[in-house]
Amino acid sequence: MKHKSLDDAECPIARSLDHVGEWWSILILREAYYGAKKFDEFQKGVEGITPSTLTRRLKHLVDTGLFKRHRYSEKPERYEYVLTKCGRDFYPIMWTLMEWGNKYFAPEGIFIQLKNIKTRKAAIPFFADRNTGKEMLPKDYQIAPGPAASAALYTKIATSKQE
Amino acid sequence: MKHKSLDDAECPIARSLDHVGEWWSILILREAYYGAKKFDEFQKGVEGITPSTLTRRLKHLVDTGLFKRHRYSEKPERYEYVLTKCGRDFYPIMWTLMEWGNKYFAPEGIFIQLKNIKTRKAAIPFFADRNTGKEMLPKDYQIAPGPAASAALYTKIATSKQE
Repeated sequence: MKHKSLDDAECPIARSLDHVGEWWSILILREAYYGAKKFDEFQKGVEGITPSTLTRRLKHLVDTGLFKRHRYSEKPERYEYVLTKCGRDFYPIMWTLMEWGNKYFAPEGIFIQLKNIKTRKAAIPFFADRNTGKEMLPKDYQIAPGPAASAALYTKIATSKQE
Repeated sequence: MKHKSLDDAECPIARSLDHVGEWWSILILREAYYGAKKFDEFQKGVEGITPSTLTRRLKHLVDTGLFKRHRYSEKPERYEYVLTKCGRDFYPIMWTLMEWGNKYFAPEGIFIQLKNIKTRKAAIPFFADRNTGKEMLPKDYQIAPGPAASAALYTKIATSKQE
């Protein structure tokens, strides 16, 4: 997919997408959560990815700060890819994609799920708000301008028809 | 981006990605959450999207069940695009992308945020588990095979090095 950089947009969603890049990147991150660090481990885990795409995507994820490269062998020179804090903090997006996929696109039943390590119960995740400690229901929340919003963004949000 | 359909993969993340399609689709969904329904509203909201890409993406989102088309004018024939339950249930992914973008890619400050309609306070979202009512910390949860997992998937998960 080719598009101009969205990084100058005032939208954190567009910025996030710009930094992750494309679907392959998300599947690479998925493998990192499974514990992959080496090129071959990513290659094996992401079905159908070519070495050149994997090389390009890993470089992008390093450049944008989701992975850092760590040299684990000097001769031959070999690197592994370790999640940064920013990369690890992508996990809620992975969780929500997993939940949504399980809910709508798993007619055969659930393939993978999150389990609590101690209780071994499958998680039933929901969003809560630290201000209230309660579930965040979409009907109670709206998108609002933040401190850095421009006049144009204020107008866009003020005139939006959020349900 | 060209890749073979990932829909046959046993991964709800890959399936989700396959159904959303690409970044443009997420920005189109973002506009739908802002209240966009008509072609022109999407066109105006998603900066840089061409009419042909928008047409193709809207069709894909209808085909995969995130939008349904609703005819609002007979002469001339005009349609609007209304979120289905599946499409509305994508909002947590949007929320997590927004949070992550605000955290890492907003050096100028926050442009948009979620506010509680009643209290007008900016939300501080976190994941909780209905089983416990408590926050889901990544260290307490692991990816586990679901009821429909194949032997190969069991092996992959069992041999993974989840942290």
